[in-house]
Amino acid sequence: MNVLIVYAHPEPQSLNGSLKDLAVETLTALGHEVKVSDLYAMRWKAVADADDFPDRAYPDRLRYGGESKHAFLGGSQPADVAAEQEKLLWADAVIFQFPLWWFSAPAILKGWVERVYAYGFAYGVGPHEGERWGDRYGEGNLLGRRALLSITLGGREPQYSERGVNGALDDVLWPIQHGTLFYPGMAVLPPFTIYQADRLPPEAWETAADAFRGRLSGLFSDETIPFRRQNGGHYDARQVLKDGLGAGATGSRLHLRQPGEPAERPVATTEPEREDV
Amino acid sequence: MNVLIVYAHPEPQSLNGSLKDLAVETLTALGHEVKVSDLYAMRWKAVADADDFPDRAYPDRLRYGGESKHAFLGGSQPADVAAEQEKLLWADAVIFQFPLWWFSAPAILKGWVERVYAYGFAYGVGPHEGERWGDRYGEGNLLGRRALLSITLGGREPQYSERGVNGALDDVLWPIQHGTLFYPGMAVLPPFTIYQADRLPPEAWETAADAFRGRLSGLFSDETIPFRRQNGGHYDARQVLKDGLGAGATGSRLHLRQPGEPAERPVATTEPEREDV
Repeated sequence: MNVLIVYAHPEPQSLNGSLKDLAVETLTALGHEVKVSDLYAMRWKAVADADDFPDRAYPDRLRYGGESKHAFLGGSQPADVAAEQEKLLWADAVIFQFPLWWFSAPAILKGWVERVYAYGFAYGVGPHEGERWGDRYGEGNLLGRRALLSITLGGREPQYSERGVNGALDDVLWPIQHGTLFYPGMAVLPPFTIYQADRLPPEAWETAADAFRGRLSGLFSDETIPFRRQNGGHYDARQVLKDGLGAGATGSRLHLRQPGEPAERPVATTEPEREDV
Repeated sequence: MNVLIVYAHPEPQSLNGSLKDLAVETLTALGHEVKVSDLYAMRWKAVADADDFPDRAYPDRLRYGGESKHAFLGGSQPADVAAEQEKLLWADAVIFQFPLWWFSAPAILKGWVERVYAYGFAYGVGPHEGERWGDRYGEGNLLGRRALLSITLGGREPQYSERGVNGALDDVLWPIQHGTLFYPGMAVLPPFTIYQADRLPPEAWETAADAFRGRLSGLFSDETIPFRRQNGGHYDARQVLKDGLGAGATGSRLHLRQPGEPAERPVATTEPEREDV
């Protein structure tokens, strides 16, 4: 299978760098093809701005989404953006390796999302009619791919537990896991985490590495997070969860399928044929 | 009072640009002093990297937090970073004006946080002992200030409602409102929002502008979000919410004070004396 690693850390000798190297080594040994987008090494342009669109459809006022659509459909995207889109389409799984800074991804990675997730590629996809507001949240151009966040955190695990002061990790990662990965169709694995990453004693590395190897070997078989699909019949025409679903849950937990609930409708669009699936 | 507006949009003629201009005009008319950090116009350096630390404490391996502490304490921070910190200390309220892109702040604003929020300035502040893990979440160097997110969203309001497919807006904004604004001590106002911002008809502008003027006039008097303070006695030594608190809530709602719960302990640190408070 094909695996893309999107890696965002400024220091090759960091724990994140070691985890990225370990992933390349482990996945290659498992027989997978691996590509790495090393955003810092690539000096990735983090800021979405007018420089992304030398051939402007609407020259007098920058509408980023509109220009993004125009450039994507017209083939005039920046080369770095088009290359990342190709890697995403090539991949069967995408691993994001980064330190959680201020409870989200480093700016350079957020900027990767903003620029690579073009209109027509990651959003604005599919028909908008009836209960169906486009192919998103479990459908879309990245359908059939898996995604895994592999993150390091400065804080301790209890602080990210269900009642921890930082918020439950699932809530902290909601905008990324649901809003960024599941949105264009990827199935999302539970995150791999290393807490207290700034103080990891050398002897703890092997334990962490073993745990990560285990997750990498389960990349194509582990259970993914049971996010509800937007077009699976659980949301009404306003895109609000229908009554009777999500009993007992509040917040982001509402959007996880629960045992005993009616099954979702099958995916309406044809899953793209993939040579290797 | 002093108000800092941190503004992140690449197009001056955008809705975000108009809201920023309206805020300057309205707040000035109300007698406040206003400063604007226009991140795109400033060509803000969005990426946190080794270039931030020409005078390295640890030259052989970049530890961003360690270098940040060294530079902050030693007065060797980049001039742009130090200037933003001064503005934050000058301000009585901070307004963040930006479009919600992929359910979080634009990369340029995320990068502002990563670089301006130095170790010793926004984190790593105060004693770490007993139940007290530093001055954070309701205490810290930005105590006494108010913060307001003013955001535009492409989606429709029901999609961000309690059961909406995007997740409740409070959950989407949790990493920013709680993890970034409340963390260094700011009190956070409920967000000001404009939904379907890409399709706002011209006649809707006056309604939106009136609503925003109302929020601006309540900047120093409206109720803030009742996040629990970390050191208010509601969390145990592991920083986990104590039993019996947050009844009936799950997810991020747990961290809001509820009527009938025991009062929090007063803030232990002395609130910095401010000329104008």
